[in-house]
Amino acid sequence: MIGIFDSGIGGMTVARAVEQLLPDYSIVYFGDIARTPYGSKSAATITDYSLRNTEFLLQKGAEIIIIACNTASSVATEALRREFQVPIIEVITPAAHKAVATSKTGRIGVIGTRATIRSGVYEQTICSQRPDFHVFSEACPLLVPLVEEGWTNKQETKMILRRYLHPLKDKQIDTLVLGCTHYPLLTKLIQTRVGKRVTLIDSSVETAHYVRDLLTEQPHLVAKKDHGIATHHYYVSDLTDSAQTVARKIFARPLELILT
Amino acid sequence: MIGIFDSGIGGMTVARAVEQLLPDYSIVYFGDIARTPYGSKSAATITDYSLRNTEFLLQKGAEIIIIACNTASSVATEALRREFQVPIIEVITPAAHKAVATSKTGRIGVIGTRATIRSGVYEQTICSQRPDFHVFSEACPLLVPLVEEGWTNKQETKMILRRYLHPLKDKQIDTLVLGCTHYPLLTKLIQTRVGKRVTLIDSSVETAHYVRDLLTEQPHLVAKKDHGIATHHYYVSDLTDSAQTVARKIFARPLELILT
Repeated sequence: MIGIFDSGIGGMTVARAVEQLLPDYSIVYFGDIARTPYGSKSAATITDYSLRNTEFLLQKGAEIIIIACNTASSVATEALRREFQVPIIEVITPAAHKAVATSKTGRIGVIGTRATIRSGVYEQTICSQRPDFHVFSEACPLLVPLVEEGWTNKQETKMILRRYLHPLKDKQIDTLVLGCTHYPLLTKLIQTRVGKRVTLIDSSVETAHYVRDLLTEQPHLVAKKDHGIATHHYYVSDLTDSAQTVARKIFARPLELILT
Repeated sequence: MIGIFDSGIGGMTVARAVEQLLPDYSIVYFGDIARTPYGSKSAATITDYSLRNTEFLLQKGAEIIIIACNTASSVATEALRREFQVPIIEVITPAAHKAVATSKTGRIGVIGTRATIRSGVYEQTICSQRPDFHVFSEACPLLVPLVEEGWTNKQETKMILRRYLHPLKDKQIDTLVLGCTHYPLLTKLIQTRVGKRVTLIDSSVETAHYVRDLLTEQPHLVAKKDHGIATHHYYVSDLTDSAQTVARKIFARPLELILT
């Protein structure tokens, strides 16, 4: 069983991609809606929550853990790897690798929460592969609440995006990493803003590809359902109307959220 | 000692008003930054957090508790009164009373978080006093993140306020309750938007007045410092840069936040 956790519902973009690429595997998801958002909180608090979330997923039978949250991936991955024996997969490396493979000019933009950008983890990962590349990062703290409100096509969201993306405008980037699992819901607005010459990298999709490749190479890591169907369980630490609305938008189907 | 808790830092507008009106009393404050915001979460989760926050303040020596958060006041007051013996003061009643005393036309607007507005508690409190009054409520969920980002004078904030306040425009209200302790930081923008004929009611200030009157009538409730100076301790469940910035803005002085 594949375990996936997130600060809330944004990580469901990862879960959806995993469902699509790996239909034979069962998934257990945990969204920490009671403590959402993580992006504005301290590294110590985010690590504490991530440890608890992982314990929950292991109790439910997870054999690998996907940290489907850029913020938690940025600050808590090492602590989880020290604490637990199972493979811990984060969303930064797959997106950074894809950005390096995509960029022709070597000028890459990264947007994310305050905690993700402050951690500098995207710069480190990209520059450890290609020290000649330039990374330009911008924290976009209001995008998560805007997405959670469902304001994915409002004029105010466009204005706020324009303000956030303005410093990247004259940096001549050809690749932009959406370093937060909420941001794929803003793909259209972001693409319009940065122009179609800039390739957007979706950390959710890249992570799902990474997990598929991993399980192709090391199939013993996670047991497939050899008879019966794969189960998909979506647990949350709080149940709200807006969470259900956004979940439905992400999966394009009704989704039962189970309150822990 | 006066105990005050909030979902984060917004309740410091109440604490500041209490400091100013009651300089002889010690204050212990708890801001639940690790779990902020409350306004988008369920009543069950908010009540659970409020019980824990109150226990913390009682352990620190609080003799009365002020729930300096409209959301928690809306949904958790009864549970706290059942659970604890000390006086529990919420921010709704003082603001509602002031609104009733202020309005001449009997048409009152209320803005707050989704949880506060959904609870209907302002309508109930106002209409229990004056059944002939009309209350018009609007949830403004993005204002808390905007204030916490320090965007208290940005064009985007003005646009979002315009959208939120638009439904109140033709209701001919003469009084508007700022039903969230973050909103006093937006007073200027809100006043400009609704026009100067509408009187704004600040739940933070009204609650401080209410506590002063209560302690004048029942001075035995809280021990004054009879020698030495009153102490003011501000505890938080997480420590972030933006919390420190907003705290400094509210108090107009540097403030030491103590991590629990």
